[in-house]
Amino acid sequence: MTKLLTRDTDNNGITTLTLNEPDQRNSLSMAMLDALSEALTDIATDDTTRVVVLGAAGNVFCAGHNLKEIRDQLDSYEFQLALFDKCSKVMQQVVNLPKPVIARVAGVATAAGCQLVASCDLAVAADSARFATPGVNIGLFCSTPMVALSRNVSRKHAMEMLLTGEMISAARAEQIGLINRVVDESMLDETVYTMARTIAGKSGHTLKIGKGAFYQQLEMPLAEAYDYTAQIMADNLQADDAREGICAFLEKRKPEWTDS
Amino acid sequence: MTKLLTRDTDNNGITTLTLNEPDQRNSLSMAMLDALSEALTDIATDDTTRVVVLGAAGNVFCAGHNLKEIRDQLDSYEFQLALFDKCSKVMQQVVNLPKPVIARVAGVATAAGCQLVASCDLAVAADSARFATPGVNIGLFCSTPMVALSRNVSRKHAMEMLLTGEMISAARAEQIGLINRVVDESMLDETVYTMARTIAGKSGHTLKIGKGAFYQQLEMPLAEAYDYTAQIMADNLQADDAREGICAFLEKRKPEWTDS
Amino acid sequence: MTKLLTRDTDNNGITTLTLNEPDQRNSLSMAMLDALSEALTDIATDDTTRVVVLGAAGNVFCAGHNLKEIRDQLDSYEFQLALFDKCSKVMQQVVNLPKPVIARVAGVATAAGCQLVASCDLAVAADSARFATPGVNIGLFCSTPMVALSRNVSRKHAMEMLLTGEMISAARAEQIGLINRVVDESMLDETVYTMARTIAGKSGHTLKIGKGAFYQQLEMPLAEAYDYTAQIMADNLQADDAREGICAFLEKRKPEWTDS
Repeated sequence: MTKLLTRDTDNNGITTLTLNEPDQRNSLSMAMLDALSEALTDIATDDTTRVVVLGAAGNVFCAGHNLKEIRDQLDSYEFQLALFDKCSKVMQQVVNLPKPVIARVAGVATAAGCQLVASCDLAVAADSARFATPGVNIGLFCSTPMVALSRNVSRKHAMEMLLTGEMISAARAEQIGLINRVVDESMLDETVYTMARTIAGKSGHTLKIGKGAFYQQLEMPLAEAYDYTAQIMADNLQADDAREGICAFLEKRKPEWTDS
Repeated sequence: MTKLLTRDTDNNGITTLTLNEPDQRNSLSMAMLDALSEALTDIATDDTTRVVVLGAAGNVFCAGHNLKEIRDQLDSYEFQLALFDKCSKVMQQVVNLPKPVIARVAGVATAAGCQLVASCDLAVAADSARFATPGVNIGLFCSTPMVALSRNVSRKHAMEMLLTGEMISAARAEQIGLINRVVDESMLDETVYTMARTIAGKSGHTLKIGKGAFYQQLEMPLAEAYDYTAQIMADNLQADDAREGICAFLEKRKPEWTDS
Repeated sequence: MTKLLTRDTDNNGITTLTLNEPDQRNSLSMAMLDALSEALTDIATDDTTRVVVLGAAGNVFCAGHNLKEIRDQLDSYEFQLALFDKCSKVMQQVVNLPKPVIARVAGVATAAGCQLVASCDLAVAADSARFATPGVNIGLFCSTPMVALSRNVSRKHAMEMLLTGEMISAARAEQIGLINRVVDESMLDETVYTMARTIAGKSGHTLKIGKGAFYQQLEMPLAEAYDYTAQIMADNLQADDAREGICAFLEKRKPEWTDS
């Protein structure tokens, strides 16, 4: 049986997760969400993974929820609540994963697929990629996708996508801040994996501290955010890797991380 | 007597509200604010309106508060407080209206006029439009306008407008995210009403759910926003229009909305 | 002995603070932070200062913390906590100063140096300027700098700088909203001081009210922000300068501020 989600870790510590149900437009069925959730739970404590690249097989990145599955369960409010709850949990697993996640987007990313891109720490897209939150077209507003979308782009840009349901180009997505970079499709892997290797070359302990603190402090008032991060900095300095990093810098040599 | 504010609903369910006191630069006098408030209250429950376009007669979109009125009431702290309170209420009526509002901006939008544009869900401007928060030039900082402005553009861009009081072009307003699009003046109506018709073609019930949830979840921490919207999604699925929309999509036919 | 920080006030009320330790890359040592803190405390109540320009001597704007100092105190958790706390306090002094602060950036601004730029109300950079939060490269994540950075630019842009540690150009910094403008180095002073003079020509009382309210309301939900600023507006109208400004405007003459 073909796996819904493939996982491969290279010798740089870069784990590639690939949504692998192209004939279902890589939709986030309950089964796909379970597979993602399980993989992310495992990766969180897997010492061989330093950075995650999230991609997809085929020419659709991810079409969001599986509408056939939803239709087949239209009478089960329980199923629906469980589905949206599971999906929201998976998105938060990406945000809370102690390792950076880069979305590698080729093709269309819509609804919860667009949300998945918005939930990653970084995103690079091929120039042929397109993005939309088209739930409004089928009477089901993209209310969970907008949580991630509206925390990435300004409210007028988010509202235009949400209210019109129309596609935007990769270039527009880059312009409004939904993704970091748009490149020619032939350069997509090189761009993504160069970025991933750059990040994989840092101390894993430092990345964990920093990513975690980033999303925490975003939700605090300024004074509280500073109290919190000043403490984080002082604690970060107790780590072996900070001491090694500072000494290596002053001695003009390459640091050797122990991820501690 | 000419009406301060005209209102016209076409057969697509698009209601155009037009600030209609061009010789007063469409300023937000207490009377104009009352007219706007009354119209918005009525539109909120008017089944013939699906989308609102907010425009203005003449070559000034809106110059903000009526300074003559303020000067004539300089001794009444009570009046002033009532004025700013009323204005703030009207801006929140736009945000809380269960129907999308598109600003159609030709000419200058300054102070509370700029705030009105920022408060709309979407905004399209003619390339000749200009924007400013110039209160600082007359000793009265644009403190209420900045509430809407600073929730649309980044803080450095907001601060530049607020501290210098200088005009920015429509192109710059588009660049910093204050408006969605800037078009040649000859294309303004076509662009605005095409967008309005696109949105008016969606389920009114879905638009109401989505717009309401959008502004609610923006003010929540991430986990709370997801708990809230997952529930919204499941509830949205109980609506006739969601069931119709999903079935129509899977059956490759056009949905027929009942707005329920 | 050369001063770490020079201060000069011109007859327009523009005070230029210059980080003046170019051979230490103008790093924010404890001594430099003390000098900045003292200067800002003094300027807060100095009637001769209307606007602050924050610049630096030499070809580095500011390289962040002094790593030699940190290394020499690696055994003192107490020192480290005091250092990051002091730095956070200085950044908040910039934000809370009742007078606008413009960063004048030539050369490199990294780590806490980038944070300093992000903390200013406005920032103008020479096209040769560059920005980074490279703490991740030495095992010490830029956790305090990211507080200011992430409140200026979108999260994907912030995360790219934080996770890769790479430099961005002044043009890119302008594009993502970290700075207001990028100009040819030969135009830097003219641009900065023209902006400073424009702002220095406003009522100091009004600037104080407005800047203070700006950062306060940013941290409030919408309804609370409007309640707060409606009151600020009404109170602002009680000031002599607001009355003078409004009358001067209606009488088409230049206002004369008394800063009260």
